[in-house]
Amino acid sequence: MGFTENNAAPVDHKRRLFLDNGTRTNHSSNSNSVLALSTGDPTMFEPFWRKMGDKCKVVIRGGDFMSYFSDIKNVCWFLEPKLGDAIRRLHGVVGNAVTEERHIVVGTGSSQLFQALLYALTTPGGAEPVSVVSSAPYYSQYPEVIDCLRSKLYKWEGDAYSFKKEGPYIEVVNSPNNPEGGLREAVVKNGGDQGMLIHDLAYYWPQYTAITSAADYDIMLFTCSKCTGHAGSRIGWALVKDKDIAIKMIQYITISSIGVSKESQFRAAKIIGVICDGCENVQSTETDNFFKYSRHLMTKRWQELREVLQHNRYLSLFKYPRQHCLFTGESVETLPAYAWLKCEEGIKDCEEFLRGIEIVGRGGKQFGADPKFARVSLLCREDDFNRFIERLCMGHQGERNGHN
Amino acid sequence: MGFTENNAAPVDHKRRLFLDNGTRTNHSSNSNSVLALSTGDPTMFEPFWRKMGDKCKVVIRGGDFMSYFSDIKNVCWFLEPKLGDAIRRLHGVVGNAVTEERHIVVGTGSSQLFQALLYALTTPGGAEPVSVVSSAPYYSQYPEVIDCLRSKLYKWEGDAYSFKKEGPYIEVVNSPNNPEGGLREAVVKNGGDQGMLIHDLAYYWPQYTAITSAADYDIMLFTCSKCTGHAGSRIGWALVKDKDIAIKMIQYITISSIGVSKESQFRAAKIIGVICDGCENVQSTETDNFFKYSRHLMTKRWQELREVLQHNRYLSLFKYPRQHCLFTGESVETLPAYAWLKCEEGIKDCEEFLRGIEIVGRGGKQFGADPKFARVSLLCREDDFNRFIERLCMGHQGERNGHN
Repeated sequence: MGFTENNAAPVDHKRRLFLDNGTRTNHSSNSNSVLALSTGDPTMFEPFWRKMGDKCKVVIRGGDFMSYFSDIKNVCWFLEPKLGDAIRRLHGVVGNAVTEERHIVVGTGSSQLFQALLYALTTPGGAEPVSVVSSAPYYSQYPEVIDCLRSKLYKWEGDAYSFKKEGPYIEVVNSPNNPEGGLREAVVKNGGDQGMLIHDLAYYWPQYTAITSAADYDIMLFTCSKCTGHAGSRIGWALVKDKDIAIKMIQYITISSIGVSKESQFRAAKIIGVICDGCENVQSTETDNFFKYSRHLMTKRWQELREVLQHNRYLSLFKYPRQHCLFTGESVETLPAYAWLKCEEGIKDCEEFLRGIEIVGRGGKQFGADPKFARVSLLCREDDFNRFIERLCMGHQGERNGHN
Repeated sequence: MGFTENNAAPVDHKRRLFLDNGTRTNHSSNSNSVLALSTGDPTMFEPFWRKMGDKCKVVIRGGDFMSYFSDIKNVCWFLEPKLGDAIRRLHGVVGNAVTEERHIVVGTGSSQLFQALLYALTTPGGAEPVSVVSSAPYYSQYPEVIDCLRSKLYKWEGDAYSFKKEGPYIEVVNSPNNPEGGLREAVVKNGGDQGMLIHDLAYYWPQYTAITSAADYDIMLFTCSKCTGHAGSRIGWALVKDKDIAIKMIQYITISSIGVSKESQFRAAKIIGVICDGCENVQSTETDNFFKYSRHLMTKRWQELREVLQHNRYLSLFKYPRQHCLFTGESVETLPAYAWLKCEEGIKDCEEFLRGIEIVGRGGKQFGADPKFARVSLLCREDDFNRFIERLCMGHQGERNGHN
């Protein structure tokens, strides 16, 4: 595939396009435009939900959901009971987390819940802020969220592997990991009993990874965005063992936003119910079983990606072991939501290299990793994914032409 | 009205009921239960919206609103364009705020927008946190929100009237004021050009006050909760003149919750549209004109409240001047969302006094005022309002019996 055929301008990986992480770049389907794949906007699942039609439809009338309160008998008074039930059912069906003896705290996305946890685990606060760490490469938002308000309660201390300080600390275990996709465990060893763990399990769903066991941690975070693909709803949830921690999280969410959108909760309950129905129906296929559909799509994308990079001298990908999945009952591939690309051949900056072929990814440095890495979202719409593959192909040829 | 007739236990204003601000107290219609009126849950408007039936109905299908993005061409990329249009239309129809040359930033309630503003006005931050003040009595959440995370960027400094520090500061002007209902102006005088103003205009709507002019401040906050009564939607908006401030607010909301529920925004746009239609229809009555309905209801409640307290020796209320309202074209009464009750006859703690008659209000101290004041929400459901009036009546008799 040549440039002329594609009407694309010749590429130059040294040409920098000054774009603010892709959020303001062109998301339209103009084939000449910069391809913004720096955010994990999960629009790839749209066709499934469009086809479900009326099955997932929700109707909300003028007088519905007017109160701040959803269920005053629940510790989490702003959690819609139907959403709580749907979440327990979903984890039961998928088998990815234990919900027994856990409080469910709903949040405006798991970002808000993460902040609620920082508050819950560090108040009332001591003389020194509590250190927060995560093993690199770590989710690029952790440092931003933690240091945003310059809190005296907590402080980002970077890579968990190199953390050596005394005293209380929080380790965020993101498994499967964003950006690189592998399953993770806590790594800080010297902490004694002063360590507190947050398990961010946003991607622990069958479309991305083998479900190797029902996660049974004290604090677990999930989000609709990455499970069902409904990022616009801003619904996340925490499964929390300790009631006092749950209560403090709820205090934070009360201060931060006086609860969580009821409309979104109501709709999320409906969507999750439809997913569960599909999974429980043994006759279901890719058209009505969400995880079959999404796993199939991810498999296809990863195949195409690996194929196009097979003979690429400049970019490479990790290889992941196959693992037995308790949900599908099969040995399955790991299919991360992101391509964690590594530049070879002495190219030092992968983000810059990608910008040269009009792809906006997020550079390794933001994840506490070497700039020769960059993260590219694979959760985009089909058109954008196809353009991504085309540009990788072109980039390879362009670079080859340039280098030879 | 006596105790026996009411099956209520004899009351004792010294008996304290340890309840956490009413959020966990009994909200049901049990006439013997404690009456939780400490939060401003605006459920009084439910009957209007129930009667509107299908006019306000929204239908959301499975594939709708999946993306994080609403409008990448807008500075506020997570604002649904229809909500932006509806907000501009509403302010035009009501005449309570200028929207020309203003950016609209949507938030998860105005609480989140308030925090976004603190961030926007104080980053990157200096050696000392920026002082934040508001004239007492001030909204009880301001200190909580500001000091919650012990930020080095900003710090609550209390009553604006007694603020004398040098250097940059933020004054929050809450008009009409929560708790006491009057219109307010900024009060800090010595600030020179170092003062930044946030105008929190949550209650600047025709059901609560005269619309005396179109507010034309640099930073103005509004919320659906207090305008339409849809508190469960968690939709607030800011009108912001300075683009750089708007951009920083958007950065904060991105970090805090990666945008705002699309379902809630979509529905809020619909509800606001129905309000505007009602106002623009010259034939409209209390059944289809929201502000006529809500103003009528508030008038009725204030009349009943003033009547029942007319001969009460222990509790009194402010009197407000009538003012000309540009929206209704009439001279109108001020009808605050809260009763700001003052105890007389040497009773020192109004919250405690109210608890003695099984009413949970919020004590004056939380608003930076004398404990002889307490705030009681008048935005509750009809049943609860009637019970409130009954208990005030009983309390009066009970106290009189006790004192005589």
